[in-house]
Amino acid sequence: MQTPPRKVYLDNSATTRVDPEVVQIILPYFTELYGNASSTHQWGQRAKQAMEEARHQVAQFINATATEIVFTSGGTEADNLAIKGIAEAHAGKGKHIITSQFEHPAVLNSCKHLESLGWNVTYLPVYREGIVRPADIETAITDETVLISVMHVNNELGTIQPIKQIGDLVKARRAAGHKHLHLHTDAVQSVGKIPVDVRDLGVDLLSLSGHKIHAPKGVGALFVRRGVRLQAQSHGGHHERDRRAGTESVPLVVALGKACELERLHLQEFITRVGNLRDGLEAEIITRIPNVSRNGDTECRVPHISNFNFDHCEGEGLMIALDLKGIAVSTGSACASGSIEPSHVLTAIGLDHENGRGTLRFSLGKETTQEELDYLIETLPVVVEKLRRISPKAGVRH
Amino acid sequence: MQTPPRKVYLDNSATTRVDPEVVQIILPYFTELYGNASSTHQWGQRAKQAMEEARHQVAQFINATATEIVFTSGGTEADNLAIKGIAEAHAGKGKHIITSQFEHPAVLNSCKHLESLGWNVTYLPVYREGIVRPADIETAITDETVLISVMHVNNELGTIQPIKQIGDLVKARRAAGHKHLHLHTDAVQSVGKIPVDVRDLGVDLLSLSGHKIHAPKGVGALFVRRGVRLQAQSHGGHHERDRRAGTESVPLVVALGKACELERLHLQEFITRVGNLRDGLEAEIITRIPNVSRNGDTECRVPHISNFNFDHCEGEGLMIALDLKGIAVSTGSACASGSIEPSHVLTAIGLDHENGRGTLRFSLGKETTQEELDYLIETLPVVVEKLRRISPKAGVRH
Repeated sequence: MQTPPRKVYLDNSATTRVDPEVVQIILPYFTELYGNASSTHQWGQRAKQAMEEARHQVAQFINATATEIVFTSGGTEADNLAIKGIAEAHAGKGKHIITSQFEHPAVLNSCKHLESLGWNVTYLPVYREGIVRPADIETAITDETVLISVMHVNNELGTIQPIKQIGDLVKARRAAGHKHLHLHTDAVQSVGKIPVDVRDLGVDLLSLSGHKIHAPKGVGALFVRRGVRLQAQSHGGHHERDRRAGTESVPLVVALGKACELERLHLQEFITRVGNLRDGLEAEIITRIPNVSRNGDTECRVPHISNFNFDHCEGEGLMIALDLKGIAVSTGSACASGSIEPSHVLTAIGLDHENGRGTLRFSLGKETTQEELDYLIETLPVVVEKLRRISPKAGVRH
Repeated sequence: MQTPPRKVYLDNSATTRVDPEVVQIILPYFTELYGNASSTHQWGQRAKQAMEEARHQVAQFINATATEIVFTSGGTEADNLAIKGIAEAHAGKGKHIITSQFEHPAVLNSCKHLESLGWNVTYLPVYREGIVRPADIETAITDETVLISVMHVNNELGTIQPIKQIGDLVKARRAAGHKHLHLHTDAVQSVGKIPVDVRDLGVDLLSLSGHKIHAPKGVGALFVRRGVRLQAQSHGGHHERDRRAGTESVPLVVALGKACELERLHLQEFITRVGNLRDGLEAEIITRIPNVSRNGDTECRVPHISNFNFDHCEGEGLMIALDLKGIAVSTGSACASGSIEPSHVLTAIGLDHENGRGTLRFSLGKETTQEELDYLIETLPVVVEKLRRISPKAGVRH
């Protein structure tokens, strides 16, 4: 059947389309309300007012207070600020950090940088299900530990990590005198997808990113619990209460605030509607395509991500073939310039070079429709079959 | 005469209005071409293509090549990356930096941070004229010096620094074997105002900011000459050739590219037209208001900035009074929450607490009109006279 190419975007974990309502609301901040929020005159004051309203919107979404929100240029900067900022501020108390093997590179590479400066970092296993075990954290904590950083939701698998339980652990340790222990979570993939409440989770720091929730790329935020001391990583003016120097991007900050408001209002609807779409998609894939399996725990996960392994296929080839049909997905592997290795996430859940190659991540969004998934379900079996036929390995085993 | 309040924005050195043409060109990148530039599918590739075109536009504007441009979240991040990035990469060769007393806080506080880590920083004087002397740099250089960082144009005075002569000095030192010596300039206030050519200046690193040239806040760039080794400050993915981790803000990057193109095409016109407006404004102020003086060298400076001292006045009071009349200017002083101290720039040119208090900076822009300046010239003498009348100090001396 010859379906004409269409555009089906199923890579919402990589980035999302900016909500047209968000675009509308930021337009005046480019050409009319363009003041620098640090200026004292009315141009500056109006910019500052808009920024503070956005700060309130972000705070409200995660049950924080506005002064606990530090605007950044994105999730990566928020992670860097959290990890290096806590490390530098509390190095006198100990130089040990606990994190997991399948964190985002912003967390892993911040930790590796600290290792190069003499820090000791424990990378916890995540097992086949792709979930950190609080018992492992309990074992790993020493009096030297100043920071635990575990992501709220893994970006490739969608598995939800037991942050609340880790938060309880941290609270118990702190009550017992371990005052310099902090908990950070990278919530870039959970905010807007499942409820995120910093008090309930018991975290001291939480990173979020605008472009994963239909705000533009280039803005994010770090929640820093009141009373937590951290060292700014950007040096300069007194912006963001001396926690992040640099003129704030008023339009992008306003966009982040509005996006948080919209996500807050539609969260339950998202969970139900997109969860149903995803479950239907998975059932169809499993029914129609032989030799497929899902990666990561299929219960404790966000509603919009599906990570599949297609035996005897290359994920890269599948991704390209689908792209030619107008469908955007990702391989789930951080393959750089042609080298097709399973990602660090797949390696962490025990998939080896052979078994982690045929992986695809489908990440649905608030705009995804059943009709779009029907097109995927129609296209995918043909593409998989074709690739399996031409694969030399498939020829042997299939 | 009762003129109804209007809107006259003369604070273009603080930030600029985004060019409507720039806004138009970035709109599709919010809702249509919204891919992540790191994604392999067509959404990602189109985003990447747009970003690379913008990189070329920025490079062309300053006579660099595209691979020498690293996109950042703004001027502050570019300065931080240049200074700490060079320091960390070359610390093995020496731990000495030379800068000036009146740099932007992003440079000064990056240097102060390095001092806290054991670095030795020389802060050069800038004299009454507000210009660094190359002879002082020659005296300050030691074999331990890894970086000289001098701004191209001072943000409060508008004075142009002799970067080309410093560049010649650096080249001569390098030819004589001092290979680890680098030259950085913060060109945030010169780009788009006077010709900026990285080859002609002989710099290794140059910072620029989008929101000073009619692009949105939240984007900037660092020129890093090919072959210069620097340590990334943001850890994470392999963005910007491993020099700056974090998903690039495609719309803002596209905006920066377009803004650079527009500034390049209209630079000569800007210099002539705005220079004439500024000179006319200054002549009127000097004619109409007694006891005024200009700060900083009045020859070697950009065409759009004018920094005046009004004796027996508080700059803060003048700024507020003008704001009430709809005119935005800045005091030129970094006064925080009511403390009225002269800025570090005014202190550096020898103005003391008494003589640096009545300072105003007028910074014109490409949209400034003679009519707007006429309104200022009509308003300002009245405001100054009024403030002088109620000033207790003026009562004594005036």
